[in-house]
Amino acid sequence: MNVMERTNHNLRINADRLWASLLDMARIGGTAGGGSNRQALTEEDARGRLLFKQWCEASGCTVSVDKLGSMFARRDGLADLPPVLVGSHLDTQPTGGKFDGVLGVLAGLELIRTLNEAGLCTRRPIEIVNWTNEEGCRFAPAMLASAAFTGELSEQAVLDTRDAAGLRFGDELTRMGLDCSTPLGGRSIAAYVELHIEQGPILEAENLDVGFVTIGQGHRWYDILLNGFESHTGSTPMNHRRDALLGAAHLIEAVNVIGKNHAPEGVASVASMRVMPNSRNVIAGEVLLSIDVRHPVQARLDEMDRDVRAAYAACLKSAGLTGTIIDISNCPPVPFDSNVLDIIREEAGHLGLKGRDIVSGAGHDAFHLARIAPTAMIFTPCRDGISHNEAEDITQEWATNGANLLLRTVLRLANEI
Amino acid sequence: MNVMERTNHNLRINADRLWASLLDMARIGGTAGGGSNRQALTEEDARGRLLFKQWCEASGCTVSVDKLGSMFARRDGLADLPPVLVGSHLDTQPTGGKFDGVLGVLAGLELIRTLNEAGLCTRRPIEIVNWTNEEGCRFAPAMLASAAFTGELSEQAVLDTRDAAGLRFGDELTRMGLDCSTPLGGRSIAAYVELHIEQGPILEAENLDVGFVTIGQGHRWYDILLNGFESHTGSTPMNHRRDALLGAAHLIEAVNVIGKNHAPEGVASVASMRVMPNSRNVIAGEVLLSIDVRHPVQARLDEMDRDVRAAYAACLKSAGLTGTIIDISNCPPVPFDSNVLDIIREEAGHLGLKGRDIVSGAGHDAFHLARIAPTAMIFTPCRDGISHNEAEDITQEWATNGANLLLRTVLRLANEI
Repeated sequence: MNVMERTNHNLRINADRLWASLLDMARIGGTAGGGSNRQALTEEDARGRLLFKQWCEASGCTVSVDKLGSMFARRDGLADLPPVLVGSHLDTQPTGGKFDGVLGVLAGLELIRTLNEAGLCTRRPIEIVNWTNEEGCRFAPAMLASAAFTGELSEQAVLDTRDAAGLRFGDELTRMGLDCSTPLGGRSIAAYVELHIEQGPILEAENLDVGFVTIGQGHRWYDILLNGFESHTGSTPMNHRRDALLGAAHLIEAVNVIGKNHAPEGVASVASMRVMPNSRNVIAGEVLLSIDVRHPVQARLDEMDRDVRAAYAACLKSAGLTGTIIDISNCPPVPFDSNVLDIIREEAGHLGLKGRDIVSGAGHDAFHLARIAPTAMIFTPCRDGISHNEAEDITQEWATNGANLLLRTVLRLANEI
Repeated sequence: MNVMERTNHNLRINADRLWASLLDMARIGGTAGGGSNRQALTEEDARGRLLFKQWCEASGCTVSVDKLGSMFARRDGLADLPPVLVGSHLDTQPTGGKFDGVLGVLAGLELIRTLNEAGLCTRRPIEIVNWTNEEGCRFAPAMLASAAFTGELSEQAVLDTRDAAGLRFGDELTRMGLDCSTPLGGRSIAAYVELHIEQGPILEAENLDVGFVTIGQGHRWYDILLNGFESHTGSTPMNHRRDALLGAAHLIEAVNVIGKNHAPEGVASVASMRVMPNSRNVIAGEVLLSIDVRHPVQARLDEMDRDVRAAYAACLKSAGLTGTIIDISNCPPVPFDSNVLDIIREEAGHLGLKGRDIVSGAGHDAFHLARIAPTAMIFTPCRDGISHNEAEDITQEWATNGANLLLRTVLRLANEI
């Protein structure tokens, strides 16, 4: 242990090697628009996993795959203790970017390569995880495999999940030819740290190097069905109308006000909508829209829920509609571990990185892991907040800073707790 | 002529025969929801046309078909004068009703059957027309064949129009096997009268029997493209957003206010919208929506146009968007013939029918005919204003009243002008 303590203050990851690995991975399923398409359990995902496995094994790790395909690359520690787990996911959206998820996995690989080069051992084992189907774009909901790892979903339920084409998760996993023999979860994790791009604009706008993710935002999702009356746009006087799209407009405005009333921590959005019959000259008889409200504080999230229900009732009344409000998802805020966060903040200070506490607006596998292990996340900035988009971009410096902070955090966790 | 004048005050159509013919025609392309699907130049349209031709020939008419498939069933008059033309269309929307268009054509047939039974001749010939492709749902725009009949479109342009599957109007017309040898238009029409369901709620709401259509409303159609910025709903603070759907909501509200400011004659609607990427947790980066404003007075329509452009500019500013406004259609109001309208109003009085002047919000073949002949329309009530819908409905009494008014109007026109 003395060896570690004398050397690790100067230890840094190899920035060019990390960057080259990120770009190598991005070429698998690379899109014309400069992004990646490696949806879960596709041919491209299989090729990405194979490359990751080869890299990990070349770095001396033992790679095991659990019953749901999540991959664990283990570097043994000096003691046979529960490991420090780092990682994220290699799957992407259909028109995804190069860094969402991938940075967290490959920064994990890079820190092991760095330890290998330095000839350093840690007290606890270190494992890098690549969670299956984080994105949820192929198999809904998102973060299926980590939810099952922590016992929130059953293994069988996940295996039986089907994609839009009717293909079964379990069959598609088998088709990938992995040896998925490791039992799902059921073991002790000393700590879990996930490095991820912010997917929002705050760190870049404030010219910061890193974010210390204190809380995974709670959210409530709703589907709203508004029913009016289809009629001819030309022959229906304004006062005879029951226009579902006008009601939708009232509701969009109201949801925006709810978001502003709960800013800066809270957000509220209407982002998807289906209009029926969606014809230029037929007043909309039906609109289905989604509402997404988020807040890091449960009491405020509850207030937003009451506001949404009131806005829904008001829009029915003002536009003369009937409707249905459906609860789609209700996730409480997830506070991350204060001890792990203290270590992250301290190490950022040692590295001279400017950072701030930040809330994760997006969902991550870390939200599930927080149920079973001391967990925290590190954010890096992300150009213009763009993510889930081929144009997603980060600088090499941002990646390097994040990976160095992950390295130093993991060394502390693997040696000191 | 004396025979006519002594008898026609008591002449009435056969209500049950008209109703039975309406229901017989509705069975061709009849849908499970109780409507009809006889889109232009389909197999079902061909079967509807054949039945109409058989009925007309059985009633002693000579049926000719012009180069674009519009059918003319002629009952000769005592004098070789330009005919009085009545009719509408037998084609329907994909999920159309039983009466839109069909009532006008079959009420024309019924009045000829009635004259035949009474042994009455008219001074001018009477022709019943079935215009090809009034609906425009298969071949856009609507009312192609009547536009070409009056010289607004060229015959070749219509023949070369293609449907969504790429099939050519001319080829589909040939495939129907009609003898389309009659030259298009180019002949004198003494008057054109089109009986049609209102497709709006006014007559029913005011408990009236008929509407005297004084003006075909002018309209302006626009497509509006709003461009914001796609970003994550969870991680994008409210004050960092450029939300195209929020801008769309502002515009929908503003268009509704424009309609109310120009009520009761004016109407303004947003009825169709496409949201991109239309994902629950990605703020809309792009919205395409349509605006439809209508007014019977050109100066007011011009005001509405200015209001729409101002509302568009305001929504870009308030939501931080860029955008494009595209003019899709700009049709001035079409005033109908005051002499023909006077005759219709008088004959409604003789029949004891309660009516009112009304504006046609929907487009009709009569809008084109008004360019070349004294033209007017008669509206019947329509249950709840529902049209372009399998649930479209009228009472037998409404159909009977409309057909009797058409009969008496045509007798006046065919004998007196």
